[in-house]
Amino acid sequence: MKIMVINPNSSKHMTHHLDEVLQAIKGPDTELTVCCPENGPMAIESAYDEAMCLPGLLPLVQQAEKDGYDAVILACFSDPGLEQARELVNILVCGIQEVAVHVAAMMGAKFSILTLNAERVPSKEKDIYRYKVERGLASVRPIGLSVAESDENPDLARAKIKAVAKTCAEQDGAEVVVLGCAGMAGYAEDVKKELGLEVIDPSSVALKVVEALVACGIKPSKRGLYAYPPSFVREGKVKKGGCCG
Amino acid sequence: MKIMVINPNSSKHMTHHLDEVLQAIKGPDTELTVCCPENGPMAIESAYDEAMCLPGLLPLVQQAEKDGYDAVILACFSDPGLEQARELVNILVCGIQEVAVHVAAMMGAKFSILTLNAERVPSKEKDIYRYKVERGLASVRPIGLSVAESDENPDLARAKIKAVAKTCAEQDGAEVVVLGCAGMAGYAEDVKKELGLEVIDPSSVALKVVEALVACGIKPSKRGLYAYPPSFVREGKVKKGGCCG
Amino acid sequence: MKIMVINPNSSKHMTHHLDEVLQAIKGPDTELTVCCPENGPMAIESAYDEAMCLPGLLPLVQQAEKDGYDAVILACFSDPGLEQARELVNILVCGIQEVAVHVAAMMGAKFSILTLNAERVPSKEKDIYRYKVERGLASVRPIGLSVAESDENPDLARAKIKAVAKTCAEQDGAEVVVLGCAGMAGYAEDVKKELGLEVIDPSSVALKVVEALVACGIKPSKRGLYAYPPSFVREGKVKKGGCCG
Amino acid sequence: MKIMVINPNSSKHMTHHLDEVLQAIKGPDTELTVCCPENGPMAIESAYDEAMCLPGLLPLVQQAEKDGYDAVILACFSDPGLEQARELVNILVCGIQEVAVHVAAMMGAKFSILTLNAERVPSKEKDIYRYKVERGLASVRPIGLSVAESDENPDLARAKIKAVAKTCAEQDGAEVVVLGCAGMAGYAEDVKKELGLEVIDPSSVALKVVEALVACGIKPSKRGLYAYPPSFVREGKVKKGGCCG
Amino acid sequence: MKIMVINPNSSKHMTHHLDEVLQAIKGPDTELTVCCPENGPMAIESAYDEAMCLPGLLPLVQQAEKDGYDAVILACFSDPGLEQARELVNILVCGIQEVAVHVAAMMGAKFSILTLNAERVPSKEKDIYRYKVERGLASVRPIGLSVAESDENPDLARAKIKAVAKTCAEQDGAEVVVLGCAGMAGYAEDVKKELGLEVIDPSSVALKVVEALVACGIKPSKRGLYAYPPSFVREGKVKKGGCCG
Amino acid sequence: MKIMVINPNSSKHMTHHLDEVLQAIKGPDTELTVCCPENGPMAIESAYDEAMCLPGLLPLVQQAEKDGYDAVILACFSDPGLEQARELVNILVCGIQEVAVHVAAMMGAKFSILTLNAERVPSKEKDIYRYKVERGLASVRPIGLSVAESDENPDLARAKIKAVAKTCAEQDGAEVVVLGCAGMAGYAEDVKKELGLEVIDPSSVALKVVEALVACGIKPSKRGLYAYPPSFVREGKVKKGGCCG
Repeated sequence: MKIMVINPNSSKHMTHHLDEVLQAIKGPDTELTVCCPENGPMAIESAYDEAMCLPGLLPLVQQAEKDGYDAVILACFSDPGLEQARELVNILVCGIQEVAVHVAAMMGAKFSILTLNAERVPSKEKDIYRYKVERGLASVRPIGLSVAESDENPDLARAKIKAVAKTCAEQDGAEVVVLGCAGMAGYAEDVKKELGLEVIDPSSVALKVVEALVACGIKPSKRGLYAYPPSFVREGKVKKGGCCG
Repeated sequence: MKIMVINPNSSKHMTHHLDEVLQAIKGPDTELTVCCPENGPMAIESAYDEAMCLPGLLPLVQQAEKDGYDAVILACFSDPGLEQARELVNILVCGIQEVAVHVAAMMGAKFSILTLNAERVPSKEKDIYRYKVERGLASVRPIGLSVAESDENPDLARAKIKAVAKTCAEQDGAEVVVLGCAGMAGYAEDVKKELGLEVIDPSSVALKVVEALVACGIKPSKRGLYAYPPSFVREGKVKKGGCCG
Repeated sequence: MKIMVINPNSSKHMTHHLDEVLQAIKGPDTELTVCCPENGPMAIESAYDEAMCLPGLLPLVQQAEKDGYDAVILACFSDPGLEQARELVNILVCGIQEVAVHVAAMMGAKFSILTLNAERVPSKEKDIYRYKVERGLASVRPIGLSVAESDENPDLARAKIKAVAKTCAEQDGAEVVVLGCAGMAGYAEDVKKELGLEVIDPSSVALKVVEALVACGIKPSKRGLYAYPPSFVREGKVKKGGCCG
Repeated sequence: MKIMVINPNSSKHMTHHLDEVLQAIKGPDTELTVCCPENGPMAIESAYDEAMCLPGLLPLVQQAEKDGYDAVILACFSDPGLEQARELVNILVCGIQEVAVHVAAMMGAKFSILTLNAERVPSKEKDIYRYKVERGLASVRPIGLSVAESDENPDLARAKIKAVAKTCAEQDGAEVVVLGCAGMAGYAEDVKKELGLEVIDPSSVALKVVEALVACGIKPSKRGLYAYPPSFVREGKVKKGGCCG
Repeated sequence: MKIMVINPNSSKHMTHHLDEVLQAIKGPDTELTVCCPENGPMAIESAYDEAMCLPGLLPLVQQAEKDGYDAVILACFSDPGLEQARELVNILVCGIQEVAVHVAAMMGAKFSILTLNAERVPSKEKDIYRYKVERGLASVRPIGLSVAESDENPDLARAKIKAVAKTCAEQDGAEVVVLGCAGMAGYAEDVKKELGLEVIDPSSVALKVVEALVACGIKPSKRGLYAYPPSFVREGKVKKGGCCG
Repeated sequence: MKIMVINPNSSKHMTHHLDEVLQAIKGPDTELTVCCPENGPMAIESAYDEAMCLPGLLPLVQQAEKDGYDAVILACFSDPGLEQARELVNILVCGIQEVAVHVAAMMGAKFSILTLNAERVPSKEKDIYRYKVERGLASVRPIGLSVAESDENPDLARAKIKAVAKTCAEQDGAEVVVLGCAGMAGYAEDVKKELGLEVIDPSSVALKVVEALVACGIKPSKRGLYAYPPSFVREGKVKKGGCCG
C-alpha cells in the first residue's frame, strides 16, 4: 500500500526527522512518502497558522490521490485541513490527533493531553469535541516550554513533562497521556515507567492504524459531512457521490 | 461607530444586495461598510470553500482594525474565519450564525435551522457544538433547492420553506427558525404569520447586536482561544496579550 | 422604541441608581422607564425571594404591554419571572443574566460568574442549564462579601473581585467574567486591564441587546414554552396563539 | 410519622379525591393530611399558575414543620414551589414528578411522560433537566385531551392514552411510562397489561417513597441549593445552617 | 411482603451483620431474608470479583422468585448482577448503589461518593453513568483505608471519613455524601452533624425504598433492556414478554 | 507478534468460520490463534449470557498472557469480559465493538449500528456510552431476523440489511454503518455500493487495529480502571501496579 504523510508546516528539518521515525516502523508492504508544503507557516501554533497552511497542503492531498496513494496522514497535532482534505478526495485521510485520542479513549477511563503553552489549551479542548470523545478527557495541560526551549534543554523538558504528567494522573485522574507535540516523543518511556501511565505518541500510532484501515478498505464516508464540494460536482471535476475521473 | 461587514464570498452582486439591506437598518451613528474579497470562491458551500476564502478575507479584517473600525461582521452563515480573525485583531469580530443561534436559543425552548441542501446538515450540526447551544437545537433541515433554483422560482421557494418550517415545528418541536441562507430572508414574515414561529434572519440581527456590543465596549477575550498567534508576538507585530502598535 | 426595565426587588434606592446608569447609555430613539414593584422583597437572594417578587412584578409586565412598550427587561441577575412574563405578554421580555451569559459564551471559550456568597453557587449553576450554555461555563465563584460589606469597603471589594477573577482565569480557564451582582459593575475596568479578561456587566449589555432585538422585531416564540396560560385562553383574555385584544 | 400532602391548586374536589386514594395506601404508622391552599389557581397549567399558587402554598409548608410533620409532598406534576419549600424548612419536602422520574429512570433504559396538551411538552422537558435524568427520557408526548374532556369521555381517554403510550414504546423506545396527570391514574393497568410497559403513577409512588425516606431520616441538604434564605438568617428566624427555633 | 437481600460476596460475617441492621428497620409487614452465595469471592473489589460472584448469586435470585419473594436487593455497592438478575426474573430487583444515587440526586444539587481506595474511583464514575445521574455527581473520593484497616482503627476511619467528606463539600461542591462501603455506615451521624451534609447509607435506604416500590407494584420493565434472555424464550422456560410459568 | 482471538460463545462452528476469515487478512508477522471456551453459552444474546461465558473465557485470557501472546481480541459484538480481562492481565485486550465504534466515529459525522432483534437495542445504546462516543451515534436499528433465519434465507437477509441501512442513512443521518453481528459481514459490499455508506465489519477491523497497537507497544493503562484486582495483589499473584511474575 502507498501512504503519504504530510507535515502541514513547511519545516524541511522536522519533515526529515518525521521521515526517519516513520520509515523505521512502517509495515513491510507500505510504500511511505513523507513530505511538506513548499510554502506556508514554519510552525502551526494558531488557528491562523492552521488556515495559512492549507493552500500549500490541500494540493498535495489531491496529488496523492491522483498518484494512487491509498491514504494520507496529516501529521500535525491540530489536524489542520482534515475536513477539507476529506471533502476533496475519496481515499483515506486521517489526522494524528484524531487517531491518538480515539486510541487513548480505548486504553483507559480518562486521558490527558500535554501541550506546549497555556494559550493552546482551549483550542485542544475544542478539538476533543470535534472528535466526540470529550467524556474521556481528564485534562489538557501545558508544559510551559517552547519547542526551541525544549530542544535546547532536554533535561528540563524531561523534568517538566514528567511533572505535568504526574499532575494529570494525580489531580485529574488521567490513566493515559497523549503527547501533543512531536518533540515530546522521546520522553514517552520515562513517563510510562515512572508513573505507570500509558503514553500515546500520535504520529506513530496514526501510521500503524492507518495501515490497518487501508488493509480493511475503510475510508471516510462520502455521504454527508465529507461529500465533494458542490462546485466540484457542478464543474464536472467529480461525479456526485462518486470517484474522481 | 464604524462597522465593516465582510461577505466572505467574492460575489459583487450578493455584496451589493447585502449592503442595501443593512444600510437600511443600521443605527444613526453607525458608519457601515459592506465589502467582499477580490478573489476567492463565488459561493461558500463546503469546508474547502470556507478555507479558500480566508487568504482574501483575513487581510480585510486586519485592514479594518488599522482603519479604526470598531467591529467586523463575517456575513456568511458558516462563519468562515471567525477564530482566525479573532486571533489577528483586538476589535470585535462576530459571525452571523454565531449571533443568530444565540438569539434563537434565547427566544424559545428549541430552534431549527433551515439550510439549502442535505449534504450541509452535518456541517451545520457541528457548528452548533462550536457555539455550545446544541441543547437548544431541534433540527437542521434542508429545503432541497439550490440558490439558483430558489431565485428562479420564488413561489416554489416560498412553498418549500413553509413546508419545511412546519415540519421543524410539528415533528422536531422547534419554536424558532433560523434562516440559514441569505436568499430565504424574504419569506420570513410568511413563516411567522402562518406558523406562529419566531424567525431569525441572521445578517440583520447580527448587525444590530454588534452595534449593541460595540456600544458596551465588549470584544472577544484575548486571553486564551483568541490570543494573538505566537509568531506575531515573536516577530513583534503585536505585544503579547496587548494591542496592535 | 419604548423599553421598561423592572428591578424585581422593591428597593427605590437601587432602582434610582439603575435608572441613572441606563439612561446614560440608552439609544437616542429609546424611551426608557426604570421601575420596581411597590411591595415585595428588598433584595432577591433566594428562590423564595424570587417567588415572592412575582405578585408585584408580573402586573408591571402586563401593564407595559398595554401601555405600548416594545420590551421589558428583568434587571436582577437571577431573572425572576422570566418564563411567567413571557407567557403573559406578546412583547419582548429578557432577563439580564440570560443576555449576559449568551454574550459571554460568544466572547471566549469559557466564562465564569462572580456571585456574592457561596450558598448561591448551585443556584447560578442551575440557571446556566436553563440557558443551555453550560458547556461554556468555567466556574461560578463567590467573592464572599455581602452587598452591605461591599458598599462600605470598596477597596476590600475591589481586591476580592480581582483575586477571585484571577482564580477563575488561572484555575478554571475562564477568558470572560460575568459580574453577577449590580454592585460589582464599578470594578469592571480594573479586572479587564490587570487580568486581560473580558468582563460583562449584565444590565448594560442587556439594555443594548434588547434595543437591537426590538429593532429587528424579534420576540420570544408563543408556540410552546411561552404560550399563553390556558386559563387566559379559556377566559377570552387572549386569542390562542394570538395577540392581546 | 406525619406526612402532609399539599395539592398546589385550590380545587377542593381534586384534593378530596387525592385524599381518598392516598389514605388507602399509606403505611399503618403514617398520619396523613391532604390539603390545598385556600386561594390560588384552580388548575396548574402554566409557569404563571405555578408562581401564583406559591403565596398560598408556602405558608402551609411552614405550618407543617411547626406542627411537627416529618415530610411534605407537593402533589402536582410540575412540582411548583419545590425549591422554595426546601429553602424555608428543614424537614423532607418532595415533589411527585421528582420521585416519579427517578423511579422511572431505575425501572428501565428509557421512560416517557404522558402530558395533557402539546404546549406543556417543552416545560416537561425542562423539568427533566432540573432532575438530572434527561438521559433516561425517551419522550414527552401529549394525549391531546383537556382534563374536562378526559373526565367526560373515559373511553376516549383510555383509547388515547393507550395509543400514545404505544407510540412512546414503539417509536421512542420507552420501556416505562410516567402518567403526567392525576386523571390518568385509572388507566395504568390497561397500559401495563396490553403494552407490557411499566407504568408509574406519581402521587402513589411519591407517598410510599417519602415514607421510606422519613424512616431513614433523610432530608434535603441545607448546605447549598436549599440553604435558608439569607433574609431569614439576618432576621433571626433561623440559625444559619441550623434548625428552626 | 417478602424481600430477599443478597450480599453478593460469600462472607457469612458481613451477611450476619447486614441481617441485624436491616431486620431492625424493616417494615412491620415485611418478611426479610438476608443471605449470600455459598461460594464466590469473599469481597467484591474489582470487575473480576463482580463477574465471579454471579454464578453463585443469580440462582439465588431465581429461587427467590420461585419462592414467592416480591423483591430482591443486591447489597454490594457495585450492584453486581443487576442487569442479569432483572433479565432472569419478573419481580423487583434493585441494587443499593442504584437506589442510593437516585435518592442522593434528589436531596441536593450535587452529591459525592466515598469509596475505599483510589483504584475504584473510575469504576464508580462509570456506574454513575449507568444510572444516568452523572450531572448530579460532585466527585468520587477515596478514604485510603482498606476494610481491615478501617475495622482495626475506628478513630482513624472516623477522622479520614470526615476529612474526605469535608473536601467533597468545600472543593467539589457536594451537598450530599453517599457512603460507598458498608463499614462507613457507623460514622454517618458525625458527618451530618459536623459538616451539615446530608448522608446516605445505601443498604438502609435501599430496603425502605424497595418496600415502597413493592407496595406500589412497581417492577423493572420487561420490554427492552431487561427482557428475558432469548434462550429462555426458545427453550420454553418463560413466555416471551410474559411471566414465569 | 502473537494474537489470540477468543470467540466468547462455545460454538465450534462459528469459531472455525472466524478463524478462516481472520487468517486470510492477518499480517505476515502475526501468529494468530482463534479459539473459544470449552463450555458456556452457544450464543451471547443477553447480559446473562455475557456473564455466563466469563468463567470459561477469562482463564483463556490469562493463559494467553502466560503463553507469550501480545494481545487478545474478544470477538463478540457485546465485548463480554472486556473490563475483567484487562484487570487480569498486562497485555493488550480489545473488544471488537470497542474498536469498531471508535473507527466508525472517525469515518463520518454519525454512525448507526445494525443489530439482530429489537430487544438488544437498549443494550447496544448502553455500550456506546461505555465507549464514550455516544455523540457520534445516529441510531441502533434491528433487522428483525434471528441468526438462523438469516442463514437460511440469505436473500431475505440481504434485503433486510439494505432496507434498514437505508433508513439509518435517510432518517437518522448515518454516514457509516457498523454491522453488529458476524453473519452480516457478507453483505457489506452491497450496502457500500448501493447506499454510498461506509460499512464497518467489527472483527476484521479489530484484528488489523490490534496488530497496529501491538506494533506501537500500546496496552490498556494499569493505573485505574484496569488495575489488578486487589485480591491478586494481596495474594502475591501480581505486583501492585506491575507485571505478572
